[in-house]
Amino acid sequence: MAKKGAKKSKGLKAKARCVIGIDIGGTNIVSVIVDRGAKVVAKVDFPTEGAKGPDYVIRNMAKNVKAMTVKAGLSHKDIAFCGIGSPGPLDSKKGIIMGAVNLPGWKRVMLKDKMEKLLGVPVGVDNDANCAVYGEVWAGAAKGAKNVTGLTLGTGVGGGIIIDGRLVRGANYNAAEIGHTSLNPDGRECKCGAKGCFEQYASASAIAESAREGIRNGRRSLITEFVRGDMTKITSKTVYDALVQGDKYAQEVWSEFIKYLGAGIANIINGLNPEVVVIAGGVIEAGDRLFKPLNDAVRRQTFSLTFSAAKIVPAKLGGLAGAIGAAGLVINESDFYGL
Amino acid sequence: MAKKGAKKSKGLKAKARCVIGIDIGGTNIVSVIVDRGAKVVAKVDFPTEGAKGPDYVIRNMAKNVKAMTVKAGLSHKDIAFCGIGSPGPLDSKKGIIMGAVNLPGWKRVMLKDKMEKLLGVPVGVDNDANCAVYGEVWAGAAKGAKNVTGLTLGTGVGGGIIIDGRLVRGANYNAAEIGHTSLNPDGRECKCGAKGCFEQYASASAIAESAREGIRNGRRSLITEFVRGDMTKITSKTVYDALVQGDKYAQEVWSEFIKYLGAGIANIINGLNPEVVVIAGGVIEAGDRLFKPLNDAVRRQTFSLTFSAAKIVPAKLGGLAGAIGAAGLVINESDFYGL
Repeated sequence: MAKKGAKKSKGLKAKARCVIGIDIGGTNIVSVIVDRGAKVVAKVDFPTEGAKGPDYVIRNMAKNVKAMTVKAGLSHKDIAFCGIGSPGPLDSKKGIIMGAVNLPGWKRVMLKDKMEKLLGVPVGVDNDANCAVYGEVWAGAAKGAKNVTGLTLGTGVGGGIIIDGRLVRGANYNAAEIGHTSLNPDGRECKCGAKGCFEQYASASAIAESAREGIRNGRRSLITEFVRGDMTKITSKTVYDALVQGDKYAQEVWSEFIKYLGAGIANIINGLNPEVVVIAGGVIEAGDRLFKPLNDAVRRQTFSLTFSAAKIVPAKLGGLAGAIGAAGLVINESDFYGL
Repeated sequence: MAKKGAKKSKGLKAKARCVIGIDIGGTNIVSVIVDRGAKVVAKVDFPTEGAKGPDYVIRNMAKNVKAMTVKAGLSHKDIAFCGIGSPGPLDSKKGIIMGAVNLPGWKRVMLKDKMEKLLGVPVGVDNDANCAVYGEVWAGAAKGAKNVTGLTLGTGVGGGIIIDGRLVRGANYNAAEIGHTSLNPDGRECKCGAKGCFEQYASASAIAESAREGIRNGRRSLITEFVRGDMTKITSKTVYDALVQGDKYAQEVWSEFIKYLGAGIANIINGLNPEVVVIAGGVIEAGDRLFKPLNDAVRRQTFSLTFSAAKIVPAKLGGLAGAIGAAGLVINESDFYGL
């Protein structure tokens, strides 16, 4: 039914000048309206309120997005599509969310169909990490590049892969779980069940956890002072702040992080020969203290030809990347979503 | 000039029913003529004679390929294109071989232009490992699949990646160096300069080297008997033969090999979510002794959704894979080569 509705509106809607992008996070939902040149003409964010279950979240999302449209002086006829980035796993062809760790009750949620009914515009749904990377390719740090891999370093390591300008989704839309590629089959246990996963060494959480481990084992560090002895308060930022103050142990933790991040990026470069590797997440604030040693680490583990083809750059779109990317995907890959 | 020649002939040639495929190896060159349905209508192989330099190798190759065509009862007008798989690195867009470890004197060799002049048909050149995997996708073990990664386990580990039915070449045509993705940034040194490369653990050579290491360190094994004490004669086959005889140490070496091969394949599955992973090389003769424990190892390191989407299968085309794949690429991706 919904597909029919979407198809019916296609002729009229496909030429409209604006597109809605939505990024569903565990805590907040971010939404934008962009024009076809990726210019943001409106934005809004609001709490997810995931505890209220999928139906509430979806209705509330539609309500907020409609309000944003009106506030921007736009009407229904100005909106061509809506793209949504969602946690997964999901079936991006059908727009069904199979499950989502941080969203209680999301099991086989027909997100595409529900939102098409509520908004009256064709909707495409994709993985949130993929959308964030696509945003950087469409309108951010990797603009214009055709072969890009993106990594978001947070609690875990999220990934997205673009080859020849198109998002890589894989056989059942679960590609780019780069955080769960192993850097040591005898390494740290990951909650995914595997060992030595990239995100066990190169996420923001991993930096904090490595610092905690050493301090528990008696290493002295400014980090302990910064958190007044409360180990639970250690974050990647605490480690970075101690590093900036010349703390020796923080430097060790940081170097270990960079060694593994470098190895993971080297694997991407040797494996996919991208033009750009985009890094997102709070750690990119470290600037040269991150990117200089990281480039050295990656150079040591790659072929000179592939290394020289690849720039490693910080993301540019911050918290809007996912919403902008979701909009970009429904515009540029509307064929995939059947829009 | 050559491009012009190729373009001129395009109208006439593009519809011809057969295509030549050539696979340049360090020792032998294998060539086939296939029809557009991937049926092999002729084949030939001959020594590379690499020591005689690129000009000799290329002229000899053209001579042999022409002789094969005549012998098959075909004439020049029956041949649409010629595809060549070559060692690299290479510029597959321009058909220039930048260098090749096993081919002395191959530096910036204009292989496409030279062969177009000699054969009088449009030529496309690509990486030999990519061609072999493409052959399996076009006509072998992964026929009909759209998302495939292939690995050839030999002296090293060669790789090829197909996404949405197209070969992944990367920013400067050096993608899929899967043998040089790291499984341990503190691991074994590789001759490429990096540490812990996949091929240091999961190639046929690595199996033999691991066995040698242990035996040198005093491990007792049937392997020593099989080679009459000559360590240089140990190959992956020797290890396998001892394994079949119930040799405990051979079992350990084999299990270690499978652990790493499994980790590497798990990384491919979590990273690219393929439908098929094709394994080529002599070790596939081990059959269930390879594929059963390998599947278990991969399952432990992957998400159930991505694991269930992926079949891990032995290659089918043997020594013809590269030549058949080279022909398939110039047929199916003629746009890339400008044919």
